[in-house]
Amino acid sequence: MTTLHDAAVRGFASDNYSGVHPEVLAAIAEANHGHQIAYGEDAYTARLQEVFAQHFGESAQAFPVFNGTGANVVGLQSMLPRWGAVIAASTAHINVDEGGAPERVAGIKILNVPTDDGKLTPELVDREAWGWGDEHRAQPLVVSITQSTELGTLYTPDEIRALADHAHARGMRLHLDGARISNAAAALDLPLRAFTTDAGVDLLSFGGTKNGAMLGEAVVVLDPAASEGLLFLRKLNMQLSSKMRFVSAQLIALLEGDLYLRNARHSNAMAARLRAGVQAGLADGTIAGVTFSQPTQANGVFATLPDGVADQLREAFRFYDWDAAKNEVRWMCSFDTTEQDVDAFVAELARLT
Amino acid sequence: MTTLHDAAVRGFASDNYSGVHPEVLAAIAEANHGHQIAYGEDAYTARLQEVFAQHFGESAQAFPVFNGTGANVVGLQSMLPRWGAVIAASTAHINVDEGGAPERVAGIKILNVPTDDGKLTPELVDREAWGWGDEHRAQPLVVSITQSTELGTLYTPDEIRALADHAHARGMRLHLDGARISNAAAALDLPLRAFTTDAGVDLLSFGGTKNGAMLGEAVVVLDPAASEGLLFLRKLNMQLSSKMRFVSAQLIALLEGDLYLRNARHSNAMAARLRAGVQAGLADGTIAGVTFSQPTQANGVFATLPDGVADQLREAFRFYDWDAAKNEVRWMCSFDTTEQDVDAFVAELARLT
Amino acid sequence: MTTLHDAAVRGFASDNYSGVHPEVLAAIAEANHGHQIAYGEDAYTARLQEVFAQHFGESAQAFPVFNGTGANVVGLQSMLPRWGAVIAASTAHINVDEGGAPERVAGIKILNVPTDDGKLTPELVDREAWGWGDEHRAQPLVVSITQSTELGTLYTPDEIRALADHAHARGMRLHLDGARISNAAAALDLPLRAFTTDAGVDLLSFGGTKNGAMLGEAVVVLDPAASEGLLFLRKLNMQLSSKMRFVSAQLIALLEGDLYLRNARHSNAMAARLRAGVQAGLADGTIAGVTFSQPTQANGVFATLPDGVADQLREAFRFYDWDAAKNEVRWMCSFDTTEQDVDAFVAELARLT
Amino acid sequence: MTTLHDAAVRGFASDNYSGVHPEVLAAIAEANHGHQIAYGEDAYTARLQEVFAQHFGESAQAFPVFNGTGANVVGLQSMLPRWGAVIAASTAHINVDEGGAPERVAGIKILNVPTDDGKLTPELVDREAWGWGDEHRAQPLVVSITQSTELGTLYTPDEIRALADHAHARGMRLHLDGARISNAAAALDLPLRAFTTDAGVDLLSFGGTKNGAMLGEAVVVLDPAASEGLLFLRKLNMQLSSKMRFVSAQLIALLEGDLYLRNARHSNAMAARLRAGVQAGLADGTIAGVTFSQPTQANGVFATLPDGVADQLREAFRFYDWDAAKNEVRWMCSFDTTEQDVDAFVAELARLT
Repeated sequence: MTTLHDAAVRGFASDNYSGVHPEVLAAIAEANHGHQIAYGEDAYTARLQEVFAQHFGESAQAFPVFNGTGANVVGLQSMLPRWGAVIAASTAHINVDEGGAPERVAGIKILNVPTDDGKLTPELVDREAWGWGDEHRAQPLVVSITQSTELGTLYTPDEIRALADHAHARGMRLHLDGARISNAAAALDLPLRAFTTDAGVDLLSFGGTKNGAMLGEAVVVLDPAASEGLLFLRKLNMQLSSKMRFVSAQLIALLEGDLYLRNARHSNAMAARLRAGVQAGLADGTIAGVTFSQPTQANGVFATLPDGVADQLREAFRFYDWDAAKNEVRWMCSFDTTEQDVDAFVAELARLT
Repeated sequence: MTTLHDAAVRGFASDNYSGVHPEVLAAIAEANHGHQIAYGEDAYTARLQEVFAQHFGESAQAFPVFNGTGANVVGLQSMLPRWGAVIAASTAHINVDEGGAPERVAGIKILNVPTDDGKLTPELVDREAWGWGDEHRAQPLVVSITQSTELGTLYTPDEIRALADHAHARGMRLHLDGARISNAAAALDLPLRAFTTDAGVDLLSFGGTKNGAMLGEAVVVLDPAASEGLLFLRKLNMQLSSKMRFVSAQLIALLEGDLYLRNARHSNAMAARLRAGVQAGLADGTIAGVTFSQPTQANGVFATLPDGVADQLREAFRFYDWDAAKNEVRWMCSFDTTEQDVDAFVAELARLT
Repeated sequence: MTTLHDAAVRGFASDNYSGVHPEVLAAIAEANHGHQIAYGEDAYTARLQEVFAQHFGESAQAFPVFNGTGANVVGLQSMLPRWGAVIAASTAHINVDEGGAPERVAGIKILNVPTDDGKLTPELVDREAWGWGDEHRAQPLVVSITQSTELGTLYTPDEIRALADHAHARGMRLHLDGARISNAAAALDLPLRAFTTDAGVDLLSFGGTKNGAMLGEAVVVLDPAASEGLLFLRKLNMQLSSKMRFVSAQLIALLEGDLYLRNARHSNAMAARLRAGVQAGLADGTIAGVTFSQPTQANGVFATLPDGVADQLREAFRFYDWDAAKNEVRWMCSFDTTEQDVDAFVAELARLT
Repeated sequence: MTTLHDAAVRGFASDNYSGVHPEVLAAIAEANHGHQIAYGEDAYTARLQEVFAQHFGESAQAFPVFNGTGANVVGLQSMLPRWGAVIAASTAHINVDEGGAPERVAGIKILNVPTDDGKLTPELVDREAWGWGDEHRAQPLVVSITQSTELGTLYTPDEIRALADHAHARGMRLHLDGARISNAAAALDLPLRAFTTDAGVDLLSFGGTKNGAMLGEAVVVLDPAASEGLLFLRKLNMQLSSKMRFVSAQLIALLEGDLYLRNARHSNAMAARLRAGVQAGLADGTIAGVTFSQPTQANGVFATLPDGVADQLREAFRFYDWDAAKNEVRWMCSFDTTEQDVDAFVAELARLT
């Protein structure tokens, strides 16, 4: 097979539009050849446990899966009885971007709460944290947060700890959707465990795909008492890879050294550069009519544009509308976004406004 | 990451114990770099449609997914209303090896029929093909066969055509689990379409993983009228890859040239060599007490061994018991099995019996 | 068995705290004796079709079920593919009072919208009516309203027609949860079909239990093109009564004559009397600190009380908090609520405030 | 509403073709009038607990539901994790007559085993009792038996004890589908607990409908450690009756005195009379070509008839084919079957053969 696409083209649509980091690809090749036991009893998945333990503590158990929806659904299902419900922000990926998989596949009711910035607080949790014991109400037993959030914002470790304490005090568990957890670690400049294990998170989805992997996520159990049956649930939810060594090798490649951080720091830096560039343009008048709708704390920039600008800008760089009714757009940076990409994008925006 | 395993070790446990064929790995690398639209709107998934059309006819539509269970469950669900049931052999992978995924995730009742050789016949189908319109009975609306079967046996094109005609005449559709479809094509020495599209199969699971891919299968719709909602079902069943180009590239690598055939012919030939070696040993008295429990028509050999031999043999070569109560074992060959592997295995068996 | 309870005690907790209207009990007795074909092929279920056709038009098809949750879940599932979602008010019974049954049993995602009065409008629908064709979004294909609503309010026929037109223009269907549909007919003083069939409703749940039946509801299909597979879905969702004649007889008793209207008019009148009594007390100063939080348009009265009053009042009459944080309570009247009940209740409230 | 059917017509189709026993109807009337707390906190459901405790022991907890499918599915789901499977006879109602409800609603895989007489044995259980810990296999964690069976046969207490011991020794639980449990008690002439609680059954479905109730079954937990979450599961599976007093009153009517036994003894006796009548006819030559295909141990008679006789006989008395290919039919007797019914039936059979 030969290359069918123009490998020089990049945009700001999503961090999953990018390819595979060369070190991840190299790790796949290293894991190749010979036979390894299928379905997770291979040397790489064993090694992966050590790597996760280093980052998340000795109790951490990692279950590699295929994708983020799979990680969230399998992980949440392992935390909940059949009558359980999950409290999440309305903007949570599990609520709006998984085609109803939590409801349909796992039978999970999502009690969603509107937020300004994609972040729950104990007060927001309390809007849905009630009714335990009442069989008419789906029982709120897990609070789920996303770090970094779908709106490019960040929880501090203290904010997560407050949510964990609040949840635990009410008999609930704390789940963290970490599709972009490495971006959070990079932005907070903290070890992964500082805002997860050490902040009271019980179980998380660790995202590799959006940070340079080909495909590969993991359900990571931090408190073994919070989760049951993951081996079975991964299989029956069709998330069990036979040649698992190749999924595990990707995650090892990210986490064994600092590749997860290098990639995330770079994509965060590119988002910061993009925002700074636009802000400079607004300041010097070369750009007009652009407003930022969220803080830029990780690798996503959210802004509103003058009428018609988004479509014109998209002729040069692909990206998504976030809320078309408000002219709000999302610009995502990836591990392979270059300074030239950002500067060209800002220049094009300036040309159009 | 460095290699953690002994890449020289191979066994006869499963064709998914092997790694990735170098041409598949090369294809992944070719598809890398730059940005491609996520979730299937990339150049490789587009090309994949052409490749599948060449093999299965112009109507064929391919939906890449992660694994075989996913392909089967998503494909079958697209063929069935919520009240539908599937008639399958008792030994079918969907009945015994998917952790109940068809029932739990897709709500599919499996009406299973015992067989001698893993193959359904119209007569066997009729044991469960009744009760349409009776709301008390899960409605049999799909017949599912596996080619090559879980017992290493093969359907002829005529046998498949007879099943398709039988099913269609009763308002049912024909599904084919093609986890080892390439082995069938190699064994039959026929184009893929000869025993699928041209034999009346409505939808199939195309297996890449067991034939040299890293991970990658596809739901392939042959009759578009037999399937509904696959785009939605793939997503909500958590089988939608974001960086799909890398799944599609693997399948292109297998199917664009003749790699699927080369790999399958080789694994079939190794199984034949293994059987011939044992038969020769039985003939000349160097091997004793071994009986073949199924014909060897693809890449799996099924045999019964004298008491205690299986465990001793496993000290040198890993393989699985098939029916421990009968001392029946399964020996699978893979694309990377060598003549030396086979000969050493036969020699060891001779030594032990 | 002898009577175990004080049959003189009544309260304002719910219209399902009441018993069975004598005419309904008499109908059960009339349907007794001899054999009738089980599962719906009996003379009473046949007659029921005629009765529903008289009220809802010739196309109406009624499928008796056990309870309201069953009617809603079975009916909605028959309107939706596996990837479908339902837009409903946040206060809808299907969203908050069914233990997650729509999600868990039917795999239905509910896209809920906050409202002031429990009523959707086209504008409110549009908050969630988008994203068709996007596999990442559960597909909004049904709008569900409740008439009379869970907040005791009413849709006019014109309001329902506007919602139906709005939904239909976007490829969606309109479902009506009619657990208290008779109260709506009584309050509007209109035939049932005036605000259902004639207003564009596609399928509804007809409630008998809250209006004098022992147990018995029906899924009523108004537009046969809007629903598929109800016979199968009723069975597989465990809502198929074997001795169905006794469920059908109850609904015939309500609908063959005007019992549905007599009962509903009475309970509505009792709610109006209750409200009027409290308002009179507020006017003449015998009652203080009570505010009505919703209009009283059917048989429910919603009010906020001074601190502590609710619990004191409950010592004499059972009723539920609606929003305990706001001291908001719900007082429901039933077919068997008497003027004396209401007057005693108002007097007690006066005594306490 | 007036009577619409000929109350003098009876047949041998099913014990759910019959109506309501007058004492059950009287109990419903006794429970009427006044208000009772909905959803199970009423005086009748409280009393029901005492009644069940008398029959099944102090640990017994009863959860009234609407129908037998509901009782089985809710009960089994409460005994199983999401990855659990149930071993049952192929002829079990849960396997063949519930429209796939166990699979679709509860996600339960049924591992079915062919039997001669509808009865499992430890040896038959072992055909599917294996594979614990293997995530590829749905985990066999419950054995389900039916008493009396779907083939009209009976387990002795010793047989049930052997199954219970066998299951418990392997970490499995024993479920009993008691749709016709009263017929078993009558036939065995034993207290209900003798072949349930005292024989090691962990949870059962208690059937009222087929023994003179209008509708009403109960999930009865015998070992509280074997079941979890029933309150929630009953609600979310749409089996929670709001006016539960009327379901409970029916079961009280059956069980408080000996009505359950009187009805069951009568229907059993009618089946015995039917069989004896046919046997007498065979002996004296007035009946020819009829063979009994199962022992008649409860209220069902299974027989094979000469070609064409079934359809002729059905012109006078309704009944079902059991296995049309073998001319096998099922004749069920009910609490209201009369000696005259039986004698007329035998006479008609004699006339036709």
